[in-house]
Amino acid sequence: MKVEQVLHMKGGVGKDSYGNNSTHPRTVISMVKPVLGESMVELYSAMSSVECLKIADLGCSAGPNTLLVVSEIIDIIDETCQRLKRPPPCLQAFLNDLPGNDFNAIFSCSLPSFYESLEREKGTEFGNNCFVAGVPGSFYGRLFPPNSLHFVHSSYAIMWTSKAPKELVSEKGSALNKGNICVAKTSPPAVFEAYLEQFKRDFALFLRCRADEIVPGGHMLLTTMGSIKSNDPLSIWEFVGLKLNEMVVEGLIGDEKLESFDLPYYAATGEELRSVIEAEGSFELQRLEAFNMDWDDYIKKADGNRVLDKAARAAIIARDIRAVGEPILASHFGEDIMDDLFRRFEHDVLDYMEAHKCQYINIVMSLTKKDI
Amino acid sequence: MKVEQVLHMKGGVGKDSYGNNSTHPRTVISMVKPVLGESMVELYSAMSSVECLKIADLGCSAGPNTLLVVSEIIDIIDETCQRLKRPPPCLQAFLNDLPGNDFNAIFSCSLPSFYESLEREKGTEFGNNCFVAGVPGSFYGRLFPPNSLHFVHSSYAIMWTSKAPKELVSEKGSALNKGNICVAKTSPPAVFEAYLEQFKRDFALFLRCRADEIVPGGHMLLTTMGSIKSNDPLSIWEFVGLKLNEMVVEGLIGDEKLESFDLPYYAATGEELRSVIEAEGSFELQRLEAFNMDWDDYIKKADGNRVLDKAARAAIIARDIRAVGEPILASHFGEDIMDDLFRRFEHDVLDYMEAHKCQYINIVMSLTKKDI
Repeated sequence: MKVEQVLHMKGGVGKDSYGNNSTHPRTVISMVKPVLGESMVELYSAMSSVECLKIADLGCSAGPNTLLVVSEIIDIIDETCQRLKRPPPCLQAFLNDLPGNDFNAIFSCSLPSFYESLEREKGTEFGNNCFVAGVPGSFYGRLFPPNSLHFVHSSYAIMWTSKAPKELVSEKGSALNKGNICVAKTSPPAVFEAYLEQFKRDFALFLRCRADEIVPGGHMLLTTMGSIKSNDPLSIWEFVGLKLNEMVVEGLIGDEKLESFDLPYYAATGEELRSVIEAEGSFELQRLEAFNMDWDDYIKKADGNRVLDKAARAAIIARDIRAVGEPILASHFGEDIMDDLFRRFEHDVLDYMEAHKCQYINIVMSLTKKDI
Repeated sequence: MKVEQVLHMKGGVGKDSYGNNSTHPRTVISMVKPVLGESMVELYSAMSSVECLKIADLGCSAGPNTLLVVSEIIDIIDETCQRLKRPPPCLQAFLNDLPGNDFNAIFSCSLPSFYESLEREKGTEFGNNCFVAGVPGSFYGRLFPPNSLHFVHSSYAIMWTSKAPKELVSEKGSALNKGNICVAKTSPPAVFEAYLEQFKRDFALFLRCRADEIVPGGHMLLTTMGSIKSNDPLSIWEFVGLKLNEMVVEGLIGDEKLESFDLPYYAATGEELRSVIEAEGSFELQRLEAFNMDWDDYIKKADGNRVLDKAARAAIIARDIRAVGEPILASHFGEDIMDDLFRRFEHDVLDYMEAHKCQYINIVMSLTKKDI
C-alpha cells in the first residue's frame, strides 16, 4: 500500500464526504487565527518591497476549509495595508495535497465562489490580484522552486507520516503492534520507538524541503495533532482500533488483516517537535503552544454552545472521523465493513469518552526561516 | 449556459474520453515542435541569469497530450544546457484549463508517470527540479501574477471564444444563425461579422492579460485552428451542424433547440490574427505559419502511414470530435441524442470529405513580449 495513493479525505459532495464533515479542523483553524494574524502582520510589515506575496497551504484537503486560511490571510493583509496606507499586494496562493485529493472539487466548486466573495468583499483591487494554483504531491519532498515562498501554512497534516514505520514488522515477518492501528496504550515500547523515529525522519525532511523553498525571513505556521506525553497518545485512532478489534473477535475481520495494518500517524509532543526543529536548524521556533479540546468540544462550539444530545454528538464525531479515515481504512479492510465499523464507533464513542479523558491535543508552531 | 462550465474535453479514462481520443492535437503539437524548439532556444540562450524558468500551458486539457509540451520543452532545455555547458535550470510549469477540466486525472495519473520518466531519462538533477502546478480558470482573464512567466504555450485553445456572440440573437429574440452551430457556408454575413468581432475582442483580451504576466523578452507560442478565407470556414463543426439539422428534420430535435445553440468557436485567418496582435501592441509577431491537414491526415500519420480503411478512419474521426464536442453539445441538446448524432457523423463523414475539400487549417504563431 502506497500511502500517497490512499491517504486523502473522502472526496465528493456526499453526506459522508470530508467536505460536509470537517467542522473539527475548521474549529482548530479559527482557534489558531490570532497566531496566524501575528505571524502574517510581522511578515508583511517586514516585506515592504514584495510585489507579489507567495503563500502555500500544505495538506489543504477539499472542502469548505480549503480556502479558509487563504481568506483569513487576505483579511489580515487587507487590514494591515489599510493601517500602513499601502496598496494591497498581489497574492499567489498554492494549495497542496496528495494527488488523490479531490482537486476537481476545489477548482470547480470552492474556487469560483471564493473569487466571487473576494471581489464582493474586497473590491476588484484585491479580487483581481489573487491567483490560486493547485500543487499535487507529498510535502515530504520538494514541491516548489528554491526561495519562492514567503509564507507556508499547514493544519492537521504533519501528523500523517510518509508511511507506517517498517520496523513494525519484525525480520521474521510478524507484526509488533498486534491489535492496534497506531501507538496505543497496549503497544509495546518498540512500537512507540518506531513511530517516533519515523516521525522524526519525516518532520526533519519536511523542514529541510521547506527551508529550500521559503525565502530567508519567511514564515511558517504549523498546526498538528499532538500528545501531552509521547506514550500517552489519547488518540481517537486508538478507539477506531478498539472497534476493529471487536470485529476481529466476532470473526468479521481476519486476525492477520488487523495485524498487518498500521496507520501512518504519529501525534508528537511539543518537546519532540521542538527538538526536531532545533536539530534540523533552518528555522527559528518563535512560538509553540498546545491547547486541548474534548473530542466533542468543537461540536458544541460549532453549534453556538447549544448542547446537542449524546446521540447527535456521537453521530457527528463518527461522520467526521469517517470522512478522514475511510479511504485509507477501506483500502486495507475493504469498503464492505465500513458501515459496520463506524456504526460501532458511533454507538460507543460517548460512553468511552465518559470513561476516559478523551481529548485532542493541538499544537501550533510559528517559525521563521533563518537568514543564513 | 456559461461556457466556462460546459466547455471542456470529455473527462475520465473511458473509450469516449478525450484522454483516449486526442491523436489529432498530438499530431499538431509534434508538427509545431521545430517552431517550439526555435523559440525556446532563443529564449533560454538570452536568459542566462534565470534561476527558475517559469512556463505555462494554457488550455492543457487532460490526457496524454497534457504534459507533452512540458516534456518537449525539457528536452530542448536539456540539449541547450549541454551545448552551452550550463547546469539545467529549475523549471516551474503551470497547467491551465477551465475549472471543469479533469485536473484529478492529470494529478493522479499523468503527473506521477511524468515525474518518473523525467527522473529516469534526465536523472535527478533535472527530475528533482521540475515543479508542476494546476491553474484553473479562463485565459480570457488574468491567471498569474505580473511579470511571472518566461514562456507561454497554447495549442488548439484560442479558437474557443469566451462565449458565443450575443449579436446572434436579434433584439426581437430571433436567431440569426438558423440551422447552423457556427460560421457556416449558409450563414448570413451578420453572423460571420458577429463571430469575428467576438474573436477580436477575446483575442485582444487574451494578449493583454498575457502581456501583464509575461516578462519583457518572454516568448509565447500559439497554435490554433484557422481559416484560409474568413468566410470559408471548412469547419468540422459545420458538418456536426448538418447532422444536427438532419435530426431536426426527422423530428428528433426541436427546431428552436438548434436555433438557440451557437458554438463559442471561431477559426480566424492569419491576417485577422496578425491585425489583432498589431493593434493590441504588446507583442512582436516573429513568425506566423499555416499548415493544412485533411481531416483524416493525422490518422494516417499516427498509424505509421498504413492506410486505414474508410470505416476505420470515420470511426476515429467521430470519436475524436465527440471527445471534444460532447460536453458542450450534451449540455444543450441532452445526453440522449449523442449516440445517434455521432453515429450519423461517423456514417457520413468520409462521403462528405470526398465531396468537399475538408481540411484543418492550423496556424502557429511565435511571439515575443516587447520590452516597453
